[in-house]
Amino acid sequence: MAEMRRVSVVLPAGGTGERLGGETPKQYCPVLGRALISRTMEAMERVSWISDIVVVVAAESVDLMKSIIHTYGHKRITLVEGGVTRHRSIFNGLCAFLEDHSLGAALQKPEVVIIHDAVRPFVEEDVLLQVARSAKEHGAAGAVRPLVSTVIASSSDGCLAHSLERTKHRASEMPQAFLFDVIYKAYLQCTDYDLDFGTECLHLALEYSKVRAKLVEGPPDLWKVTYKRDLYAAESIIKECLGKQLCLITHNKEDAIQIGFLLHETLKSQIKNLKAISSSMCKTIQDLQSILQGQCYNFVCINVKESDFEETQKLTGLLQTPGVCPSYPSVVVSDDVQLQENVQEASAIIVALLKDRNPVLTGQILVAGK
Amino acid sequence: MAEMRRVSVVLPAGGTGERLGGETPKQYCPVLGRALISRTMEAMERVSWISDIVVVVAAESVDLMKSIIHTYGHKRITLVEGGVTRHRSIFNGLCAFLEDHSLGAALQKPEVVIIHDAVRPFVEEDVLLQVARSAKEHGAAGAVRPLVSTVIASSSDGCLAHSLERTKHRASEMPQAFLFDVIYKAYLQCTDYDLDFGTECLHLALEYSKVRAKLVEGPPDLWKVTYKRDLYAAESIIKECLGKQLCLITHNKEDAIQIGFLLHETLKSQIKNLKAISSSMCKTIQDLQSILQGQCYNFVCINVKESDFEETQKLTGLLQTPGVCPSYPSVVVSDDVQLQENVQEASAIIVALLKDRNPVLTGQILVAGK
Repeated sequence: MAEMRRVSVVLPAGGTGERLGGETPKQYCPVLGRALISRTMEAMERVSWISDIVVVVAAESVDLMKSIIHTYGHKRITLVEGGVTRHRSIFNGLCAFLEDHSLGAALQKPEVVIIHDAVRPFVEEDVLLQVARSAKEHGAAGAVRPLVSTVIASSSDGCLAHSLERTKHRASEMPQAFLFDVIYKAYLQCTDYDLDFGTECLHLALEYSKVRAKLVEGPPDLWKVTYKRDLYAAESIIKECLGKQLCLITHNKEDAIQIGFLLHETLKSQIKNLKAISSSMCKTIQDLQSILQGQCYNFVCINVKESDFEETQKLTGLLQTPGVCPSYPSVVVSDDVQLQENVQEASAIIVALLKDRNPVLTGQILVAGK
Repeated sequence: MAEMRRVSVVLPAGGTGERLGGETPKQYCPVLGRALISRTMEAMERVSWISDIVVVVAAESVDLMKSIIHTYGHKRITLVEGGVTRHRSIFNGLCAFLEDHSLGAALQKPEVVIIHDAVRPFVEEDVLLQVARSAKEHGAAGAVRPLVSTVIASSSDGCLAHSLERTKHRASEMPQAFLFDVIYKAYLQCTDYDLDFGTECLHLALEYSKVRAKLVEGPPDLWKVTYKRDLYAAESIIKECLGKQLCLITHNKEDAIQIGFLLHETLKSQIKNLKAISSSMCKTIQDLQSILQGQCYNFVCINVKESDFEETQKLTGLLQTPGVCPSYPSVVVSDDVQLQENVQEASAIIVALLKDRNPVLTGQILVAGK
């Protein structure tokens, strides 16, 4: 990113998630088996022009975070211990660029720092670029969304004082970006009251660095995972995304090739990215890894004889090798010879299984058409 | 409801759902196969002290609504044609209590009118009662929720003007309730600008009837289904709710009884409401209806011989009889004799199938443990 000397990220993740009604802070809640924050970190890592990703975590969660980083092979992450409020945690994160901290040495100071939320996993490169560029130009920038509900002010007796015009207001979302010196100076100068009760970084930049942040209209997927229903929604979005590719594995036998061909014809209207390969092409971990690197996490094996199941079981075993497919459970479906007469039904079942991605059904034998 | 002479509901449902990015208005989007508005109407119908439910729909959707009302057997619904904006639609709904309208005769005027949204299906009796009572006392009342994001005001050049203190503001949600005369008078007196560009009924009551609405803190499930992710969340909430009951059907054969017993033991820790019955107790539509009326929409049949499948198929057929189980697809799982050795695995599969409720897997034969 030639136009900006260095861009890094601070990801505050010290929150306690009390609004979820559970005990697990929401950034650690599993979504399809993987902590939400791991998905957010992955979204950041995909962006090549981001240098460092500072994740600010509660002292008691440091070990958990280390194990998440190890399990999913996260890179460019620096852990920093959080403060008791969101603003204090962000400030700790910023300080890691200037001085050594309890969990490591100082990082190189960036020109622009992006501040994001651990619980907004669907952030895309496009909006990160927009806020970073706007921050370079204006000193500060933040993503906003239209208000879904009217906002009202209440009086001290719990009655309506007045309602705000919806069109003149916006919900302030994340990511936000700042020239490092603008936001760091604001944090240095702000009061303890700001640090303890404030929530809005754009406000600090305005109040203490006299910088009026540029507002960037963000996409709806930036929303903050706050309630249990948001975890459901996040899971469904990921499932939808994962269910679009399929690798159809056919044994080199006439019947299997025939079924594979029929299935391929029926499935191709429903699956965006469908590839068919011979079973000889997925016998090793290296074979599988190249398929997985092509963003394909779904496999269907066509079996025509009982004896073929052995090969399918080998594949299932390979997929479960630690480190091979750490991101998502893969679904393996094996089908009976009867399948040939029930291709439509089998295709519907395959699509349904891809959509639901229920790990319990992995390796389950489904007999179409009975 | 002795304390209030008559309480009725106006449900504006004329919106176009453009924020969903699809062409179907969101109130008509299927959630587990059933239009969202049907679930909202059902939530209102469950409340015995609500007299009339006036649903305001766009002229072009009247036939669709009539077919939804017929399919799901909705009661106490009066359809009224909507206006071009939300406020004009609500006003049309209120007028149906005073004069004959294009779709029918005038209804009896209520003392308190509740205004809700077609796209908030999870409204409970408790919050409806709270807003109705508060409206009786204060003249107007509305459900509110804490703000999830900070709200900011933007200046004309797209930069931050100022941010609002999150703790002093609330998101105005639905339901709201009013003394009928308070809100009707407000609508009579408000300007065309209000009717065309306003969104907040509490504001009209304040401005034109000088009534300061009481604000009632509502539960999180009141949220408005606005984006595609909200449809996903709604679906998951309904699935979770439906997956809590199970009817285990055992044939009167020794093996089946034995498996049924083992399954019952394993499942009871995971299913809230588990009943086991003999297959002779679900042979007719009447048998099934009494089970369905007990809010149980899940059936598992234990088969031990090929010949038993015939009985299972009869049950599947019964469940698909029009009108028998219109609300939710039921899942029927049949299990092989091998099941006996794999009760744990079979239980996990059953629970997974209940959770996903994928209609494609209905009647599918699953062979546990292969």
